[in-house]
Amino acid sequence: MSLKAISSKDAASLDKDLMDADIGGWSLDQLMELAGLSVSQAVYRVHPPSAGKNVLVVCGPGNNGGDGLVAARHLAQYGYTPSIYYPKEGKNPLYQVFIRVLRSKQRRKKKDKLTNQRLKTQLHNLSVPFITDLPPAIRTSDFLIDAIFGFSFGGPLRDPFPTIISQIETASIPVLSVDAPSSWDVESGPPESGPGSKFMPDALISLTAPKPCVRFYRGRHFLGGRFLTDAVARKYGLDVPAYPGVDQVVEMPVEADGGRL
Amino acid sequence: MSLKAISSKDAASLDKDLMDADIGGWSLDQLMELAGLSVSQAVYRVHPPSAGKNVLVVCGPGNNGGDGLVAARHLAQYGYTPSIYYPKEGKNPLYQVFIRVLRSKQRRKKKDKLTNQRLKTQLHNLSVPFITDLPPAIRTSDFLIDAIFGFSFGGPLRDPFPTIISQIETASIPVLSVDAPSSWDVESGPPESGPGSKFMPDALISLTAPKPCVRFYRGRHFLGGRFLTDAVARKYGLDVPAYPGVDQVVEMPVEADGGRL
Repeated sequence: MSLKAISSKDAASLDKDLMDADIGGWSLDQLMELAGLSVSQAVYRVHPPSAGKNVLVVCGPGNNGGDGLVAARHLAQYGYTPSIYYPKEGKNPLYQVFIRVLRSKQRRKKKDKLTNQRLKTQLHNLSVPFITDLPPAIRTSDFLIDAIFGFSFGGPLRDPFPTIISQIETASIPVLSVDAPSSWDVESGPPESGPGSKFMPDALISLTAPKPCVRFYRGRHFLGGRFLTDAVARKYGLDVPAYPGVDQVVEMPVEADGGRL
Repeated sequence: MSLKAISSKDAASLDKDLMDADIGGWSLDQLMELAGLSVSQAVYRVHPPSAGKNVLVVCGPGNNGGDGLVAARHLAQYGYTPSIYYPKEGKNPLYQVFIRVLRSKQRRKKKDKLTNQRLKTQLHNLSVPFITDLPPAIRTSDFLIDAIFGFSFGGPLRDPFPTIISQIETASIPVLSVDAPSSWDVESGPPESGPGSKFMPDALISLTAPKPCVRFYRGRHFLGGRFLTDAVARKYGLDVPAYPGVDQVVEMPVEADGGRL
């Protein structure tokens, strides 16, 4: 089965529809919880707990990173030992003050930031470490979750991400990317040269629908986000696959040409 | 395995801890999503889709009702045909205006109310009907989810709930209760007489930990709420059971005395 891809513009519009109180009615927290849960279930399939325990979750500054934080929490509950690398979360103590100011000034922006801060608290309570040096963490991990950039990424990479992408690209451990391989343009795929041009994760989980860049991808491919309605799927011309049982994730079969979509 | 029960006072304190931004870091939306998801997974075990499709979800005015709304949404995604009876949601159109006023006046209160309104929108988008007459809906349903009252209920029942409890108590379809059999005092169990005194659901899902009234319960018993940390479990003297795989629910074995806890 080949699923229709959703453009980054449509994916942004779909996200907006879902979170509009009068249209989809979803909150960011709900969507992120189900997205992160589906990522954790894909990880469980690709790397069952007995086959690999130490998982390094690399989180970007936006909602893709939030999905990674939620996934890490569920993985800790499943018995994995996750560590988080979250380089652009705003480590300065002033950030907290900034948040409190935003709390009264910019409700929406504040809400997004606070969600990630609360997810961090949940992970601290599970004794999940936030590491500051990526290369040694890669060496001691069994696999890596790339939750850096999602459907809204159009490049170019800004510091510190060129270095991070290079380190992940040359890592010898398997990588599972969330929504899109980070550094890839969501529409046009891998960059022609430089960091990310040789990046090919071993597994990918597309959220709600594959992105156009999936045509350059070869590896195991999962779909997550079991919350689309028929009306939304029709509006954006999407296929809703048959999720089995209570699963929040479904694996896409290999395509006839040897690739997977 | 017999799990230690949590008093209603401790359950309220635990809930407060979980949602304190500086302690647990959870939002109501996150907790309700995972609670409702665990309810839907217990339902899937007790009533697999092939054995019973029409499910009637009776929702109370508080968070127990919200868990029921989330469960209904997941059940719709699994292929069940849920209907909702939600007698105290505030049907008056003025309620919407009231919400908009609350939105600017009372942030916290508004948030709780809005969550349930948003959950309703999500169900409308899945074409899940909200019914207004309980007895005929019971007659055409295969089973019923009692999501009326949870850990905070101490009686007495107020209108319209005495009638509703009587209708559920005498229904000939199986009932699964969320957190506690509604009408039961969370500490002291079933009322001595009147509505609820003969109420014995066929299945019960306790959220985070069994409540003291579970000692009066005989039937299949599940535990849900796979988000407790060891520290919280220690603080409240709770056992965290071993959830298998990626499951959000675990069934408790039959006790030696023939009952289940």
